[in-house]
Amino acid sequence: MTLALDAAAQDLLFREARTANTFTDEPVSDEQVQAIYDLVKFAPTAFNQQPLRVVLVRTPEGRERLVQHMADGNKAKTSSAPLVAILAADNEFHEELPAQLPSFPQAAELFFTERPVREASAHFNGALQAGYFFLGIRAAGLAAGPMTGYNAEGINKEFFGDGDHSVLAVVNIGKPGEDAWYPRSPRLAYDEVVTTV
Amino acid sequence: MTLALDAAAQDLLFREARTANTFTDEPVSDEQVQAIYDLVKFAPTAFNQQPLRVVLVRTPEGRERLVQHMADGNKAKTSSAPLVAILAADNEFHEELPAQLPSFPQAAELFFTERPVREASAHFNGALQAGYFFLGIRAAGLAAGPMTGYNAEGINKEFFGDGDHSVLAVVNIGKPGEDAWYPRSPRLAYDEVVTTV
Repeated sequence: MTLALDAAAQDLLFREARTANTFTDEPVSDEQVQAIYDLVKFAPTAFNQQPLRVVLVRTPEGRERLVQHMADGNKAKTSSAPLVAILAADNEFHEELPAQLPSFPQAAELFFTERPVREASAHFNGALQAGYFFLGIRAAGLAAGPMTGYNAEGINKEFFGDGDHSVLAVVNIGKPGEDAWYPRSPRLAYDEVVTTV
Repeated sequence: MTLALDAAAQDLLFREARTANTFTDEPVSDEQVQAIYDLVKFAPTAFNQQPLRVVLVRTPEGRERLVQHMADGNKAKTSSAPLVAILAADNEFHEELPAQLPSFPQAAELFFTERPVREASAHFNGALQAGYFFLGIRAAGLAAGPMTGYNAEGINKEFFGDGDHSVLAVVNIGKPGEDAWYPRSPRLAYDEVVTTV
């Protein structure tokens, strides 16, 4: 009873949720994606920056353009999942920062004038947001199948082309199908991860 | 009713939870931290890698060693929070990968022999795990105050010293105190983040 989060929510988000490799044909609606976004958008980032961008791949043409850049082992499931989303970081997020952080509008020009600094920040905070998004998919009662096996440069050029976006992950979304997952792999024990000074 | 996650859990983790800047004196126990870890350790990463490392700063000496590296605006709250944790990525996570991924034990030597590749992977997946950890703090009924304003090199040398760890965030943990948070800053609208192809 150490946690305040109820057991059903623990199971839905963490304990019973699994990365899915197969899906049923049941479609995933824009309303579901919006409900996911409108939940996870509140999770914390540094300076309230919001570099995450999401491309929903809904057309057969879009699917083909994506699959060609996926690693061989990911092509079949990326082709067949009900919905595939490309998660990317906008490395020019600082342009929106004064509006996102009205209490400290000068943060953009104080900290983010240099592109390498911006990129590192966009990648870190975009990764935080990607993780929140994966949990949001589970919160919607769906299974997520995140993938990082792809030609990143190929995806960046194919779907963004402005040189300002970095793909972070591609995620299959839907209801889990037959034999959707492998046996759970082990996790590090608390004492292997947490130390005290 | 588009989400499967119950409303109380939505509020606890996302909608009502806020980044805290002040805390009460109520201590945070090791049992609470273990409950947080034992929940969020199940959230997904690439290849089931687990680069996240957590240093709990419990002694006055440890607190002083940390505070000297924090940005001026973060020193007071880092000094006074009931518990402070340093979250870092272990860039040599690949040594554990064969045990973490028994279904594909050759992943480490196929993909992670080069240090820059390992670092990028450790930073991305460590960031995912850091985000999960922030939500885990909220799942324990506590408030998180994540910070990225510090001298990263200083913290890496002070607390790790092996050249193999990269601090990702420092997080204050406890029950929220008086005037614990600023007004909620805006979030990007769905249409500003999500596009369809």
